[in-house]
Amino acid sequence: MILGTIRGTVVSTRKCRNLVGFKLLLVEPYFGDKSQLFVAADTIGAGIGELVLVTTDETTQHALDRSAPVDAYVVGIVDAPPQLGK
Amino acid sequence: MILGTIRGTVVSTRKCRNLVGFKLLLVEPYFGDKSQLFVAADTIGAGIGELVLVTTDETTQHALDRSAPVDAYVVGIVDAPPQLGK
Amino acid sequence: MILGTIRGTVVSTRKCRNLVGFKLLLVEPYFGDKSQLFVAADTIGAGIGELVLVTTDETTQHALDRSAPVDAYVVGIVDAPPQLGK
Amino acid sequence: MILGTIRGTVVSTRKCRNLVGFKLLLVEPYFGDKSQLFVAADTIGAGIGELVLVTTDETTQHALDRSAPVDAYVVGIVDAPPQLGK
Amino acid sequence: MILGTIRGTVVSTRKCRNLVGFKLLLVEPYFGDKSQLFVAADTIGAGIGELVLVTTDETTQHALDRSAPVDAYVVGIVDAPPQLGK
Repeated sequence: MILGTIRGTVVSTRKCRNLVGFKLLLVEPYFGDKSQLFVAADTIGAGIGELVLVTTDETTQHALDRSAPVDAYVVGIVDAPPQLGK
Repeated sequence: MILGTIRGTVVSTRKCRNLVGFKLLLVEPYFGDKSQLFVAADTIGAGIGELVLVTTDETTQHALDRSAPVDAYVVGIVDAPPQLGK
Repeated sequence: MILGTIRGTVVSTRKCRNLVGFKLLLVEPYFGDKSQLFVAADTIGAGIGELVLVTTDETTQHALDRSAPVDAYVVGIVDAPPQLGK
Repeated sequence: MILGTIRGTVVSTRKCRNLVGFKLLLVEPYFGDKSQLFVAADTIGAGIGELVLVTTDETTQHALDRSAPVDAYVVGIVDAPPQLGK
Repeated sequence: MILGTIRGTVVSTRKCRNLVGFKLLLVEPYFGDKSQLFVAADTIGAGIGELVLVTTDETTQHALDRSAPVDAYVVGIVDAPPQLGK
């Protein structure tokens, strides 16, 4: 999974019907290339600046109550930034 | 999901029968390496210059009415460029 | 999907039985890092130098008549190089 | 699969119910870009500093007893660092 | 698929039960970033120094007799290094 920080929201009025009901969050990778921001769907309610855990590709479907065209999904809010070596 | 800008269309007369009926759009990533353009299938009707939301890999199938060999699919037109921090 | 140019063929006599019957083509990405050549299976009959459309990962299976261990598959031959902005 | 070294743990109290019961480990890639740390779920019991084998995307599901939104999973602890050429 | 050269083997005594029976080979990409070595499962019997064809992600399952947590699998031994343009 990817660790990332929520940097904003994305609004899409004209969208695929199966995407209705998901909040769309802009995620900045915590590790690696921080310029590679991506969009993750969320129903946990993560806020701007929070550190989250995102699963990707088809594995997102195992967190959803119904199938949806979502390749990145917030599966947890991380309690504290990871401490390397602990 | 990937945020991207529509930069053009791709025409393929000799193609796989399951690909017939999809518009093929050239997408430039909004974040990260802008040289990594890719092709996404579209039925929402996104136009050149519009900012779109693209889902990838097998998750595309959850937006389609029939299965198709499509690993990138436009699932929404974004209302406005994202504001970081909002 | 990935746009790529056919640069050669790959021959593999000792191979997995489900791979028999596919032509194996060496594809150079049209956009991004051109050193990242990869191999795609093909049954459309694309030739050396032709510009093709390749789908990847499990979505390849939606173009095949039988399941096969193929993570890149040629799904179309592109009529002309894409014109950015048109 | 990815070879990686366990560098820490990630704690997420507010998380998706299907993620409960998995230890979440911070993994540093052994080869390639070491800055691209990611999070893998684990039930084998790998410890900090150990070299592990991680499978990704939907293939994680073939190691689990129940489906879970996990796109990286520890499938083995490696006996010794690999010797190139042996 | 990825073209790669076998550079070594990986031994993992403490591993997931579904991984038992597979040889684990260290693969160096033939094209692109050669530092990005990864591990592929093999039952064809590829040896050190041989050039192989590797399929990835869930498509590996279409080469296996039983499902396994394997995201890279050797599906062929390549007869000769590819000749660009032929």
